Amino acid sequence: MGGDVGVASTVPAALNTIKSRSDVNIILVGQEDVVRPELDKGGSFPADRIRIHHASQVVEMNESPAISMRKKKDSSLRVAINLVKEGVADACVSAGNTGALMATARFVLKTLPGINRPAIVTVIPTQFDHVHVLDLGANVDVPAEYLFQFGAMASILVKHVENIERPRVALLNIGMEDIKGNETVKQAAELFRNSRLNYVGFREGDSIYTEDVDVIVCDGFVGNVALKASEGVAQMMSTAIRDEFSRNPLTKIAALASMPILKAVRERFDHRRYNGATLIGLNEIVIKSHGSADVYAFGFAINTAIHEAETRLPQKLRDELADMQEKGEL
Amino acid sequence: MGGDVGVASTVPAALNTIKSRSDVNIILVGQEDVVRPELDKGGSFPADRIRIHHASQVVEMNESPAISMRKKKDSSLRVAINLVKEGVADACVSAGNTGALMATARFVLKTLPGINRPAIVTVIPTQFDHVHVLDLGANVDVPAEYLFQFGAMASILVKHVENIERPRVALLNIGMEDIKGNETVKQAAELFRNSRLNYVGFREGDSIYTEDVDVIVCDGFVGNVALKASEGVAQMMSTAIRDEFSRNPLTKIAALASMPILKAVRERFDHRRYNGATLIGLNEIVIKSHGSADVYAFGFAINTAIHEAETRLPQKLRDELADMQEKGEL
Repeated sequence: MGGDVGVASTVPAALNTIKSRSDVNIILVGQEDVVRPELDKGGSFPADRIRIHHASQVVEMNESPAISMRKKKDSSLRVAINLVKEGVADACVSAGNTGALMATARFVLKTLPGINRPAIVTVIPTQFDHVHVLDLGANVDVPAEYLFQFGAMASILVKHVENIERPRVALLNIGMEDIKGNETVKQAAELFRNSRLNYVGFREGDSIYTEDVDVIVCDGFVGNVALKASEGVAQMMSTAIRDEFSRNPLTKIAALASMPILKAVRERFDHRRYNGATLIGLNEIVIKSHGSADVYAFGFAINTAIHEAETRLPQKLRDELADMQEKGEL
Repeated sequence: MGGDVGVASTVPAALNTIKSRSDVNIILVGQEDVVRPELDKGGSFPADRIRIHHASQVVEMNESPAISMRKKKDSSLRVAINLVKEGVADACVSAGNTGALMATARFVLKTLPGINRPAIVTVIPTQFDHVHVLDLGANVDVPAEYLFQFGAMASILVKHVENIERPRVALLNIGMEDIKGNETVKQAAELFRNSRLNYVGFREGDSIYTEDVDVIVCDGFVGNVALKASEGVAQMMSTAIRDEFSRNPLTKIAALASMPILKAVRERFDHRRYNGATLIGLNEIVIKSHGSADVYAFGFAINTAIHEAETRLPQKLRDELADMQEKGEL
């Protein structure tokens, strides 16, 4: 029940979900006295549909993962992951501290066989539709083997979650030619080329948005900076458009005429619709929501978790990674 | 006279410059039979104002820097840099192969004392006005010391070129807190903190556009990806806005009313106005124009070169870096 917004987003989103999906039940993990009032606002439901599981502690948003792991054994984050581990829940969705979530999930749920490190994969809107990008910040020092593992995992995810038989996988680089980039990406390219994956080569930063591929692989430092820089540009452009339209009475009239059009553009790229990043490489499903997600956005994170659970994604990953391992590809 | 567009951009831009600046003379370095017709279109000027210096070879845009260095001793790129080295010209402006330009410039002009590697620094438009970002792709494996040198050089550049006494320097990272990021940025932060620079700390990708700092430092891989991802988002948004406005007769009418407003936004962020990246860390001035620059854009690259020559930037860099070296800061 974390995040910057907390129960004001998460509880109403959970209520919306159980209302629209009779086959989904939700456990709200958090401090009962904080969660209860929010839950009661939503009317009354049978306890098997939605209930509170009390957890006494809260991991702060800027707390170090190491300290939260050591001192917050009864945090909502830890308890929720434990419930998944014990099979009480099929997936954990959290808007809390990303570092603590990843560290705790990795410690409790363990990584899949053949995988050194889990990664954060997210869907971002593009000119064609959308693309899966990873890693988004979980791993900052990433050897070529990890990049290959990220690509393999995301390829399996896209195959099963989106029913694309041979997802196109690209490596993010600073040029398209083989000679471009650092040693790590060159070595990773070699691993991809010699694998069963549908590897399409290097792509540059703009290709994330303007080219039709399914998976883009990079280390967590690069991915995080690229994604946030993109958010910064989008924000700057939106602000500038708003400024220009409110410059004088004439531009304000033009704004009225353009409002529905600009709204359509905004909706097309609304990041809330893409909320819910997957912590991929774990034995169970853990979804990270943006800390500032509103009810609408948090609902998408819940849906991602439901869809991965329905797909039985961890099992699919385990099977296909085992097959790759058997054949010496991993 | 390189680049994807070639003499059709560079020569008219050069002619515009000498027309508007009686104190600036230009040498056009390239294949005489290619450059001459374009120059003749512009009317006749005294040879001391604008003249052709023949160079028989051309470095292709995707040629490896090593091969161009070895086999293209009479390329326009190499000859132009030689003219700067010999003091015949005060600055070199090229729209050619970036890797070859950097390698040749480094070989011929040498790096400044105290500097291990030159970097590419460019100005990008932000919500507040603009910011200098480096490195943009010259260096992909960058230890902390290089990051510090990049910051020191860009700080000196901004001080003299923009008359800002204490430019604010930030390090690009995946979080604001000290514990965030990889070992390299953490070590670099330590170097910045212990220096005379006006270091303001870590900034995330979105801060490039939404925060008021003067210099943002990162390695060339991260900088290149971040900048190109930004271009991709901007392009995607522009395309989407155009699409939505041309959807039906009604939206087309709205488009007419909004045209001047959207044009104002486009102009505010027109990357052509920011064309001309500085190869910083060399003993002389070398400016890299975008390969696809048009006449308007290439004019800005020429202006950047003129302004740095007027400022005597390499001398300023040499003096201040020497002072930092003397005091054990570099």
